Amino acid sequence: MAQLDLGRVAVIGVGLIGGSVALALRGASASNDMVGVGREAENMRTALERGVVDRVAESAAEAVAGARLVVIATPMAQFESCFAEIRDSLAEDALVIDVGSTKREAVRAARAVLGARASRFVPSHPIAGAERSGAAAARADLFTGKRVVVTPLHENPPEAVQLCTRIWEACGARVSRMTPEAHDEVLGAVSHLPHVLAYALVHEFAKRENAGELFGLAGGGFRDFTRIASSHPEMWRDICVVNRDAIAAELERYVAKLGSLRTLIEAGDGAALETLFSEAKSARDRWLDAVVRDSGR
Amino acid sequence: MAQLDLGRVAVIGVGLIGGSVALALRGASASNDMVGVGREAENMRTALERGVVDRVAESAAEAVAGARLVVIATPMAQFESCFAEIRDSLAEDALVIDVGSTKREAVRAARAVLGARASRFVPSHPIAGAERSGAAAARADLFTGKRVVVTPLHENPPEAVQLCTRIWEACGARVSRMTPEAHDEVLGAVSHLPHVLAYALVHEFAKRENAGELFGLAGGGFRDFTRIASSHPEMWRDICVVNRDAIAAELERYVAKLGSLRTLIEAGDGAALETLFSEAKSARDRWLDAVVRDSGR
Repeated sequence: MAQLDLGRVAVIGVGLIGGSVALALRGASASNDMVGVGREAENMRTALERGVVDRVAESAAEAVAGARLVVIATPMAQFESCFAEIRDSLAEDALVIDVGSTKREAVRAARAVLGARASRFVPSHPIAGAERSGAAAARADLFTGKRVVVTPLHENPPEAVQLCTRIWEACGARVSRMTPEAHDEVLGAVSHLPHVLAYALVHEFAKRENAGELFGLAGGGFRDFTRIASSHPEMWRDICVVNRDAIAAELERYVAKLGSLRTLIEAGDGAALETLFSEAKSARDRWLDAVVRDSGR
Repeated sequence: MAQLDLGRVAVIGVGLIGGSVALALRGASASNDMVGVGREAENMRTALERGVVDRVAESAAEAVAGARLVVIATPMAQFESCFAEIRDSLAEDALVIDVGSTKREAVRAARAVLGARASRFVPSHPIAGAERSGAAAARADLFTGKRVVVTPLHENPPEAVQLCTRIWEACGARVSRMTPEAHDEVLGAVSHLPHVLAYALVHEFAKRENAGELFGLAGGGFRDFTRIASSHPEMWRDICVVNRDAIAAELERYVAKLGSLRTLIEAGDGAALETLFSEAKSARDRWLDAVVRDSGR
């Protein structure tokens, strides 16, 4: 495949994800003209010092001027104002992508603000993250072997979707396509639900009188189970609000599952419990094997 | 403190935990006469080859003959038969400890089988583990900086409890004391509940028609959240059966918590969600800081 040459790239929100896109594209020699813009001056200084971006713009409008690719990597609650800021400065042939964790809301905001120009917006969601945030945490290999879900709009020209796919592949990712609705349902289950469950467990214990004793005896299992409860509260607030229907439905199904497990536990039904635990372990071990195999490609 | 010199040590069940006790005590020069016994011949060969034990006995009775310390590290369902096997071969001054994850059941089994000699049994629970199992996974530093809960019986002589404490400290652990009842309640919350929750989540997704799609988009958050669902099904069956009351009570409280969270999500109450997520994150981050500080001692 021909070398990807994007010319100027604008990254709006140079945090862990936005900064890693910049570093990955630079690593793939897809651009050497990387303009960043962000709310926090100190973070933008870090981005410059680390060579994540070549230049810091004063505004999103200034950043996107002349850019062939615009990466929107702000918190999702800012998408609408971000689209409004860049609307009149976007180059005719610019491709706009985002990295938001829910896709229906990104589509809604783009159509509401960009109107006909929403055809230049191809929504995408890289399934990669870490507890750390900010430009200081950005890494060129964050997306290597990771999945990115692209959820095209019907008004996207095929070449825009294709370019978006090539961009993520240049970052080392494996790209799947889904509808925004299917994306939000599946991620509501495998990502948003576990985050809510982990926050709920930590909060439940933290509010008890014997919280000190409980945390004092929590071990490695608790640490890993609750790692995602150290995620960014503002980001997860936004995800829970915009994907509320899918998350509430998943919570309902999960609570029903816990009800049937509790019945087995109260009955002391060791055989049924062992079967369930074994089936879960096998499913997880098979999944992990597949993940390891895939990322080795 | 004087050097700990235990003479002969018998380890019954030379898996990850039992084998790591043997390696840790050897590393602390507390014994150079380590006898092991176990069900699986290949695992016992590994234990010999790796120098985890010096000798493999044919039976638990043979292993404990002349031992100053007996470490019971079999699955908990075998405690009763294990106590019965060793009862008549225990040296007069032997100290017996276990490493089981629930303590009321260990106490019950010891008293039922050992009678008056249960005074030589000091129950303990090292809060350390890993997905891997067997003598091949044993490590001398498994307990370094980790907590061990000792739950003495009223019939234990003080010097037996003291020796048990010194043994765990020689393994690098930090020792706390609790009643068996308090131990099982606290561990029911911070350890047993998360295991049940992780098994339930994986099983729920594995049984769905779109399981492939769900697992296909599961990322690092799901991986860590469900790590403990790759734990040993037989072990967790036993824990759920013997600690059923505490686990069922914790499940009930957790489901109530999820109910209140679902109300916030359905209402789109972003402010309340952000507060809850922030409080959980702060509690977890403080806990992790304390863990890192403690294990650095």
